This record gives sequence, structure tokens and C-alpha cells, in this order.
Amino acid sequence: MKVVVIGAGLAGLCAARDLQRAGVEVVVLEARDRVGGRLEGGEIGGHPIELGGTWVGEGHARMYELIEELGLQIFRTWNDAGQVLIQLGDKRVLLDGTQGAIPRLNPIALADLAQGMARFGSLARGVDPAEPWSHPKAHHLDSQTFETWVRRNLRTAAGRAYFRVATEAIFAADAADISLLHALFYATSNTDLETLMAVDGGAQQDRVVGGSVLVAQRLASGLEVRLSSPVASIAHDDTGVTVTTRDGDAFAADRVVVALPPTLAGRLTYDPVLPAWRDQLTQVLPAGTVAKTFAAYPTPFWREQGLNGQVACDTGPVKVTFDVSPPDGEIGVLLGFVEGGEARRWQRLSDSERRQGVIDSFVRYFGPAAGDPTAYVEKDWSAEEFSRGCYGAYFAPGVWTGYGDVLRPPIGRIHWAGAEYAVEWNGYMEGAVRSGSATAREILG
Amino acid sequence: MKVVVIGAGLAGLCAARDLQRAGVEVVVLEARDRVGGRLEGGEIGGHPIELGGTWVGEGHARMYELIEELGLQIFRTWNDAGQVLIQLGDKRVLLDGTQGAIPRLNPIALADLAQGMARFGSLARGVDPAEPWSHPKAHHLDSQTFETWVRRNLRTAAGRAYFRVATEAIFAADAADISLLHALFYATSNTDLETLMAVDGGAQQDRVVGGSVLVAQRLASGLEVRLSSPVASIAHDDTGVTVTTRDGDAFAADRVVVALPPTLAGRLTYDPVLPAWRDQLTQVLPAGTVAKTFAAYPTPFWREQGLNGQVACDTGPVKVTFDVSPPDGEIGVLLGFVEGGEARRWQRLSDSERRQGVIDSFVRYFGPAAGDPTAYVEKDWSAEEFSRGCYGAYFAPGVWTGYGDVLRPPIGRIHWAGAEYAVEWNGYMEGAVRSGSATAREILG
Repeated sequence: MKVVVIGAGLAGLCAARDLQRAGVEVVVLEARDRVGGRLEGGEIGGHPIELGGTWVGEGHARMYELIEELGLQIFRTWNDAGQVLIQLGDKRVLLDGTQGAIPRLNPIALADLAQGMARFGSLARGVDPAEPWSHPKAHHLDSQTFETWVRRNLRTAAGRAYFRVATEAIFAADAADISLLHALFYATSNTDLETLMAVDGGAQQDRVVGGSVLVAQRLASGLEVRLSSPVASIAHDDTGVTVTTRDGDAFAADRVVVALPPTLAGRLTYDPVLPAWRDQLTQVLPAGTVAKTFAAYPTPFWREQGLNGQVACDTGPVKVTFDVSPPDGEIGVLLGFVEGGEARRWQRLSDSERRQGVIDSFVRYFGPAAGDPTAYVEKDWSAEEFSRGCYGAYFAPGVWTGYGDVLRPPIGRIHWAGAEYAVEWNGYMEGAVRSGSATAREILG
Repeated sequence: MKVVVIGAGLAGLCAARDLQRAGVEVVVLEARDRVGGRLEGGEIGGHPIELGGTWVGEGHARMYELIEELGLQIFRTWNDAGQVLIQLGDKRVLLDGTQGAIPRLNPIALADLAQGMARFGSLARGVDPAEPWSHPKAHHLDSQTFETWVRRNLRTAAGRAYFRVATEAIFAADAADISLLHALFYATSNTDLETLMAVDGGAQQDRVVGGSVLVAQRLASGLEVRLSSPVASIAHDDTGVTVTTRDGDAFAADRVVVALPPTLAGRLTYDPVLPAWRDQLTQVLPAGTVAKTFAAYPTPFWREQGLNGQVACDTGPVKVTFDVSPPDGEIGVLLGFVEGGEARRWQRLSDSERRQGVIDSFVRYFGPAAGDPTAYVEKDWSAEEFSRGCYGAYFAPGVWTGYGDVLRPPIGRIHWAGAEYAVEWNGYMEGAVRSGSATAREILG
């Protein structure tokens, strides 16, 4: 058997590796001149940074296995000493980095937030991540935005603000952009909202020494990967597939794995065309909007102030930050996320305005010492031709119930893989790896 | 000056004609082997039918002018004699075809519906169709689905059902799929909800003798249109554009008009790529889902039963029907719309199941005589490679406020045209014509 895999991100590479191990002849076609997809290595002040996907967290069993198998090491995200800064409206509170996701707000806001989290958690536990559309109240949950739910279920400004910032940080989209059912699905696919937000014991727990892109690079080293080979079209029939690149190179195979985000999968030409409902699925799954910004300093000076570099704030452009200094802490590196609607406004500014907006946010959180970084790096993922958004697809109201059951099944000899297709750990590197392996099994089975 | 227009739908053809009249050299590249785009001629029982866009209505001044200028005639949609059938749940009521959009339900449901229409109308009048995002409460209106508004503002099951059926009929999408702000924009762009639903004095008032596609065909006759020329890519810089078809034919020009629905515009390759926010706009504007179905009978027998062939019902697959018999009424033709989520389920059935579902709906509305048509025709617009949905794009929550202001402006030498871009009569043939002319003025100006 012969298989063409389109896309050398984690899902495509894992599918290719599993197929090759089972004796299948595999070629991976990658549009970029590098592997990794939404994982990309960068550099600031002489140290590696992750321009894309970064963290491995509690429960990401396949990723930890893979990291070990590939001879890589992990280290803990800086979290131990210092406090998280939460700034909502004019309230500025600190919380112990080890105490979890709930900040110490005033008692009324805190009670409100706690009941909101509990209500959301209780709803989410009823959603089956394999089939969110099968929930008895799926249509009701999918016919409202998450913002509508937040407004109805949180009573305090601080409680609502916290949910909105969390939504932007988790989905790279605003609470108004996604359906309540999608928020519930995503939380339960990743255990719960608390896990999604947490560092220790949560989704941001560990990092790969040297950068997460090393996972993709080492996976690729044993595979036939054709770089700079963007695919234009897939011809398919009962006997096989032919995948043709924009340059006109044709690859015949028995099966093809489209390991691209849904919105990019929709930009390929299919002959014959995809069925109506499968094509429209690609129209309703836009990618989120996020830029990662980095500023380097001689030292991680915020640690001396008793801060751990983590911020959640309701004023942008940077609303969420992390300390992504190298493991030895020999320089300090702050990561700032610009996300959702905030990112769409920020994208249109000039280079210097964008940078200034980010640095101003850092100064607001960490004081004047943040105003003079030794280096600055930014990466806007929606500007990338072969991603056109990150972290992943988000589901607007009506999408899970209207199209959910046609998301994962193959169309004839065309199979799908990627973090968007994962039942467990959807949206994460762990989900991509699991989806790639699941697609390989689907083909081998 | 030289301009390439991509797409020989009404907007592209009108832009091309206006440009050519101003002395510009224009070539129109059309993917299909015919002109018209979402207008297409068909045939049933030896008589022409419209497989796509059909009606011209009150206020569609440019369309009436164009029809006259092109030597075409109009005739009235059958409406005069007979009653509209409204069936919501187990309630079945008739209303005089000339009395407007409000059915005679029980007094409580009627009062509810009337207050709902009034509330909606009052909200809609505050939305500027040129800039829906500038409404003082735009974010609030755009952060909820129309379904959320219907549930909150209509108190009776019949009132809610009526709004939902109307939404499906108007948007080819469910009330859960679209934002409240979009519903308000669309109503006000087309005068009001009553106009959108009405026949006499409304959007379904008149038809073109011989079929609406004749407008496109006659417009095209004076233009250089290259059929069967799907475009693959647009290269653009400060000096000009080069448009290349899938077959590799290249057309150099000063400007290009992309007269495609936004979701298809997003499938072209741009070099350099579109800015992040303009590319993401194409990801968040999916096409609606609609199939048109037709059944022919020896006579329009429903007219003898006192019915005018118009139905609004909350049970599918066909929920909305019209009498589209030829002007002389020598045979009877029923048109049934299958829309939104209903269409997505129906699409996946076998040929015979789909047909049977439609005929069963017609029998439910018009009695056993509808069970034995002499001919049956269906057209699923989302199955069409070069439309991938109809009637047009719909705006989910967050889209107007997140991307509205980048919808219409050109990107360098790349201009946009289509019914989706129209300020007035958005979504209609009238909007397409106005948008095409506006884009021509933008280029000439």
C-alpha cells in the first residue's frame, strides 16, 4: 500500500510514521520549507523559543512517550516561586502560582466565579467529546454563544471578565465567536476548564528542552518528506488517489491523509468535488486569531518582585503572559499572547505600533523594567499562508450540531488528521499525535 | 486600463459592463461553462424554471431598469387568488395572499408575533447597513445568535416557529447559525423583514419571462467572457496583477475584480498572500445551504382549492413553497425550498429518498393530487463546485463586529464584488448589480 500525507505537522508526521512502521510506503508533502506546521522554532537573545505550540501537560501521555522515545528532555514551566497577576477592570490581585485557576477576588466576585466554574463544569461533564451533537440538549447548547451563557450565568463584572479572558486564552477567539456547546466540548476533551488554564497539573506544565519543534524534526528524520511542495489538488476514485502539487508534481497512491486545518483542507481542489455537507464543513471552521510576542531581558526580573510572569488581564493588546525564560534562567523572556478580536485590531497597526502596544502591556504588568527589552520577536499566525490562524479551528453556534458527525469520517480514500479532529486533547499537540495515529489505524484497519 | 473580472455572475458582469462602457479593456474569466453564477436556467415539463435566483421585488430599481434595457419582460408571481398556508406545530391557518406577512393565528400567538415583529423592526431601523459595526450596541447585538433573541423575545411556540421558518427562508441558515446583528443588518438592507417575506410589494413580487438567467446572458453578450476558465491564482504588486487559470493561462491587467462569494475568494492563491484579517474574513463567511426542488403537474390544481401555492411550515424537508407555474398557467409548477439544517440532513439521503421527502411535503400541504407529479427537478447549490452554497454568505456572531470594516475595501489592486458586499438589497440580484457597479466606480474613480 502507498499513502500520501499532506502536511508535516505533528498529526501528519505521526500518521506517516505509524503507517511506515506497518510497512506502508509513505510520502509526506509539506508546503513550507520546514516541518512542524504550527510548531516552529525561533530564537531570542541567543536562546530557543517556540513561535507556535509550546506546552505539554498533565495527561498528555502520548507526547511524553514520544519525547522520551525521540531522546528529548522536558523541563517545568516557570511557576514555583511568585504569584500570578490578575487584573480585571480596576481590580488587581495576586494569586499563589500553585493554588490553581481561581484568583482571590473580593468575596462576591469570588463566589460568583466559583459558582460559574462549577456550573460550567457540571454542564461540560455531560458532553461526550466523541459526539458532542448527541447530548440530549445539544441543539439548545449549540444555538447560543458562549458569551450569552457567560452573561446569563455570571453576575459580577469580574466574574464575566475572567471567563472572557480565559476564553480568549484558550480558544484564540472571543466568547461571542464560539458556541456554548463548543466551549463545553473543548473543556471536556481536555479534562476541564481548570486543566486548560493551569500550569502545574495542567495544560501548560512542561516544555521541551530546545523547543517543541524538535519533536517534529526528529519524527520527520526517518520519513520521506518533500518540503516546499504545496498541494493544489486531489483526484480520487475507487481505485486510488493522485495528489498534485502547485508545481505540477503528481503522486499516485492508494490513500491520502489530509493533515491540514479544516479551513486549509477546503482550499484544495478535489476531483470529484467533496460532498456538499463535507465541503461546507470546511467553510464553517475558521482558524482562531493569535500572535505570540516575546521580549527578552537581561534577567527574569519579575521573579525578584515575587511574580511568576503569568498574567490574566481584561485590557489588551496582551492579556495573557507567561515566563518562557530558558531552563537555566540566564536571561528573562516574557511571552505575551494577542488573541481574538484584540489580535484583529492589533494586526492592522504598523510594526512600531504593534511592538509598542505589547511593551506597554508588559510595563503595565511588570513595571518600568519591562520597558526596555534587549530583543523583541512577534509571530502572527494568521499571516502565515500555510496556517492562516491558530491555535486551531473554532466552532461557531450551529456547527457541532449541523456538521459534527461528518468531521472525522473519511470521504472514500481521503482521510483527515489534525488537532481539530482529536476526541481527546483536542487542539493540543497531544490531540494532533492521537489524531495522526487514529487515522493511521483507520487506514490499516 | 485593463481589468480582469473573475466570475460571470450578475455582479461581475455589471462591473465588466460599466468598466467597458468607460473605455476599460475587460476580460471576464468564468469557471463554469455558462454565465450567471447563482442564476441558472432549467426546464420542467417543457417550461423554463429558475434553478437559482428568481425574484425581482419592490425597490429593486436597478434590476427593473436592466430588465427593460435588455429587452426582457416581467410577470407577477402568482399571488392574487388564493390563500397562504401557514402550518406551525399542529396549527394550520390560511391567510389572504394580499394581506401581508402576518398570519391569522390564535389571538395570543398573533399578539406575540406582532410584538416580536415590531421589536425586531425597531431594533433593525437603528442599524446602518453601510456600517453595522458602528451601532452603539453592536457588540451586544453581535455577541448573540438570532435564536437567542427569538427565545427571549417571542413567548409562544407559534411565534418562535414563525421566526425560525422565516429565518431559514430568508438566510438559508438556521436562527442558531446567524448573529442577531446580521439578521438586523439584512432586514434593514432589504427595507425590513416584512418586505423580505412578502410577494406583492416585497422581495418575491416579479419574475423575468423566460427566466432570470436571461439577464446574465444578455449582459454577457457584449463582453469578452472566457468560459470554463477557473482561476487558480492572483499575483499582484504595485504595478499590476496577473491572474492565472487552473489550466495555466495568464492574464495581465491593471486591476482585478474578484466577483466570487467570499468563501470561494478565499480558495484562490494570492501572491503575496492576503493580509491576515482579510484572509480570515473569507474563513468566517460560509455560504448558506439550500436546495430548490420543483414538481410539475398538469394544472396548478391548488389554485382551485383556494390556495396560492405559498406555504410556511415548521416541518420539513420542504418548509417554504411557491407557485412558479409559467405565466399562462398552462401547467402547474410547485417550488419547494429545503434549507439550513434541514438541507444538510436531506442532502445525505438517496436520490429516491430526497424526492420522496419533497413530494410528501407537497402532499401534506396540497393534498393527494400533489403526490403524482409529471416531472421532478432538484438543484442543491452546496453541491456546486463553483458556488458551494446559496443564497449567499451568512454572518455568525462576532463576524460583523470583528471583520465588517474590511469586507468591502480593496486590497491594493484587488477589488471585490457580489451580492454579499452590497449595502442595499444585500443578498439579492439587486444587491449584486449595485455592488458590481459600485466596484466599477471604485476602479474608475
